[in-house]
Amino acid sequence: MGGRCSSSPDTLRIYSRDYWPLALLKEVKGEELPLPIAVAWPESLEEVVKLVKLCNEYRVPFVPYAGGSGVIGATICERCLVIDVKRMNKVIHLSEEDSYVLVESGIMLRKLEEFLNGRGFTLRHFPQSYPEAAIGGLIATKSVGQYSTKYGGIEDLLIDLEAVAPDGGVIPLRRNIVPRASTGPEIKSLLLGSEGQLGIITKAALKVFKIPPFDYKNSFAFKSFEDALMAVKEIVQSGLTPAVARVYDEDDSSVRFGDGRDLLILILEEYSKPLLEAKVSEIGRIISRYGGREAGEDYVEKWLEKRFDVISELKKLVVPMGLWFETIETAATWSNLIKIHSKFKEIKKMRGVYAVLAHASHFYEVGACLYFTLTYEADEKVYWDIWREAMRVVLENGGTISHHHGIGLLRREWIFSEIGPSLDYLRRIKSALDPRKLSNPGKFLG
Amino acid sequence: MGGRCSSSPDTLRIYSRDYWPLALLKEVKGEELPLPIAVAWPESLEEVVKLVKLCNEYRVPFVPYAGGSGVIGATICERCLVIDVKRMNKVIHLSEEDSYVLVESGIMLRKLEEFLNGRGFTLRHFPQSYPEAAIGGLIATKSVGQYSTKYGGIEDLLIDLEAVAPDGGVIPLRRNIVPRASTGPEIKSLLLGSEGQLGIITKAALKVFKIPPFDYKNSFAFKSFEDALMAVKEIVQSGLTPAVARVYDEDDSSVRFGDGRDLLILILEEYSKPLLEAKVSEIGRIISRYGGREAGEDYVEKWLEKRFDVISELKKLVVPMGLWFETIETAATWSNLIKIHSKFKEIKKMRGVYAVLAHASHFYEVGACLYFTLTYEADEKVYWDIWREAMRVVLENGGTISHHHGIGLLRREWIFSEIGPSLDYLRRIKSALDPRKLSNPGKFLG
Repeated sequence: MGGRCSSSPDTLRIYSRDYWPLALLKEVKGEELPLPIAVAWPESLEEVVKLVKLCNEYRVPFVPYAGGSGVIGATICERCLVIDVKRMNKVIHLSEEDSYVLVESGIMLRKLEEFLNGRGFTLRHFPQSYPEAAIGGLIATKSVGQYSTKYGGIEDLLIDLEAVAPDGGVIPLRRNIVPRASTGPEIKSLLLGSEGQLGIITKAALKVFKIPPFDYKNSFAFKSFEDALMAVKEIVQSGLTPAVARVYDEDDSSVRFGDGRDLLILILEEYSKPLLEAKVSEIGRIISRYGGREAGEDYVEKWLEKRFDVISELKKLVVPMGLWFETIETAATWSNLIKIHSKFKEIKKMRGVYAVLAHASHFYEVGACLYFTLTYEADEKVYWDIWREAMRVVLENGGTISHHHGIGLLRREWIFSEIGPSLDYLRRIKSALDPRKLSNPGKFLG
Repeated sequence: MGGRCSSSPDTLRIYSRDYWPLALLKEVKGEELPLPIAVAWPESLEEVVKLVKLCNEYRVPFVPYAGGSGVIGATICERCLVIDVKRMNKVIHLSEEDSYVLVESGIMLRKLEEFLNGRGFTLRHFPQSYPEAAIGGLIATKSVGQYSTKYGGIEDLLIDLEAVAPDGGVIPLRRNIVPRASTGPEIKSLLLGSEGQLGIITKAALKVFKIPPFDYKNSFAFKSFEDALMAVKEIVQSGLTPAVARVYDEDDSSVRFGDGRDLLILILEEYSKPLLEAKVSEIGRIISRYGGREAGEDYVEKWLEKRFDVISELKKLVVPMGLWFETIETAATWSNLIKIHSKFKEIKKMRGVYAVLAHASHFYEVGACLYFTLTYEADEKVYWDIWREAMRVVLENGGTISHHHGIGLLRREWIFSEIGPSLDYLRRIKSALDPRKLSNPGKFLG
């Protein structure tokens, strides 16, 4: 490994956390976080295999690491070897003819997008972590991006992957890249959302798209959050799929846009103008039917500008005031969204909580994701009180504990309430793949 | 179980095969097929659990059975207890508001579609086995339907499922039906394509759609199979997604339509007329650019009429002549499709082979499914010679051994060539869930 391994205190400190707000809070307050024992930066599949086999031989737990932009503490692993795949960052093959790209897992999403853009293509995957996320981590977290309503989550882009199993064996790409196969259960789907517990992702084949030449941007104000949601429901179910739809409640649009109304932001993208125009006019009809009124392109531009740095924006606001922040995302079917929204907003009555903003993003035929941004007293007890109440509200009102951030250390307590005895079967699978219990131990798969 | 269990010779014979053409051929020739020891028809989750627990107690292998319409011998299991879920056939809940339906796994697809149609909804899943398939089997096979280009495969419709694990424990639905979640690896994806090896599916929550009120049907003749494929590629990649696209090569369209040209059949469906019209006009422009000429609606109507009974049609033709037939489906990226098509067609030079028809159906951004129909001498040696050559051709030229029929007894020999050492990890997972090796043993997961 040459010098590509370190256990210097500075390095260990850097790798002691991801972007989990509680870990950041602890760091700011000078509290200690669990430290890894070393960090290694392999440069090839063979080096990852060697590292994992060494870990197996010496019973050293290990945790994969890529961008480090997760928000749930999934990479925090006491006395583990951190295997950072960041130097495995090549584009192996772009097939312009077949619209896919094969990459090493450590490639930064931003770098991949820039590479693709230079050739007229795009991955169209824009999570808020865009500037810092890497492909392997996005797959392991089961990420979605801001354009997911049209382009899907990472699971819809992922054609195949290669991984190193927890015992050091290789889970290879299938022999041929194919659009779809019925060849038994797909092991790639176990790596999706595995958060480093079932292996280290080393390569990924992903769909890419030609950059759509025509677009439309607008925003609309509604009389209520519900009206706006129901308009988007009809838009999505009518196959008029926008690339981006975001419905902000009054509080959220006040803070973000200085406009205290329920706002819908919309971006469409198409490859032909007539198709775009037909969609825009149909969407316009639906929006008027739900009482929506045009609110102009400016809000869209403002959102586009700030969409990747909400966290740092919030930090500027809250840190000097002794406050802290958290985002909590859930998803639910249409009929449960309003209930969850209104019950969740009651969290702002809790002691130490100052604001609960909400918007809906990521729309599906059967429902949507609700995304809450909370500001509260910078205190760990307040933090966990909020989380306990939030998870109770979503679970009891039809939501999931996570739409796209994942479980990590943060949500371990609630995973059984959501998936029940499936957890025991998933744990058996972990044991079968990781008999020595070395792959990111201490997380929800044990 | 009352009288809902039988080991009468007639019953065992009925359950000794599915629609695997080799099994049918053996039956016609009077050869013996492996027999189960008994068949049980449970009526509830609790009864399935009880049966599986009894099997575990007495070390009796078992195999789930639903419609019995598979074509790969996946339900053939010597001296197994067949657990036929056909009587678990209720619609538990249709949410018109949220566009999903929760059903028991034994419900016939046709019955479910009729139920939904009566309420203005549709599953839009039309495999050729439509008249006889049941939901549980479609999930276990990883089925696609004729309208998949727009509506996706069964994996895109499946929101969640309940299953009885091979040890008799329950893998429940998650607490809430949600459109998407990032709560770790999803166990439902292991059941997709599991072919009865990882548990018995007992319930499924599936997306449904309102019946689209506007449609467009047409067919087009092209100068070559490749031109037609490239036209569909551009149509699909431009987001003009047709519900149905089928490209027939000259031989296939001769037999099916009496028109010896490369034919494209197209069906579009939309919820609004202006959107449909915009799409039709854009598609028309693309088709002309690739030299396609309108060939009229009649071929579409003819296809719609016969689309579910091709097998029986073929049987009428070939059986009296001492011939037999098989269908072989693969999928590949665009750049490999033509190569596979032309190499595969050479199979017709093999001894005992009389015809190799081909069409492409099921289109994706990165490629498509090729579907071959073969007629040959009704002889088992000829049968396996064809299969060996077919699998060599697809594997060596970028295809998958199965796009939607699955592995079963038929393709066991080639699964390792396609997925490599992933197979060993999948087998470990099977052992972890099925420690007594009782769940459909003898198939590719061991």
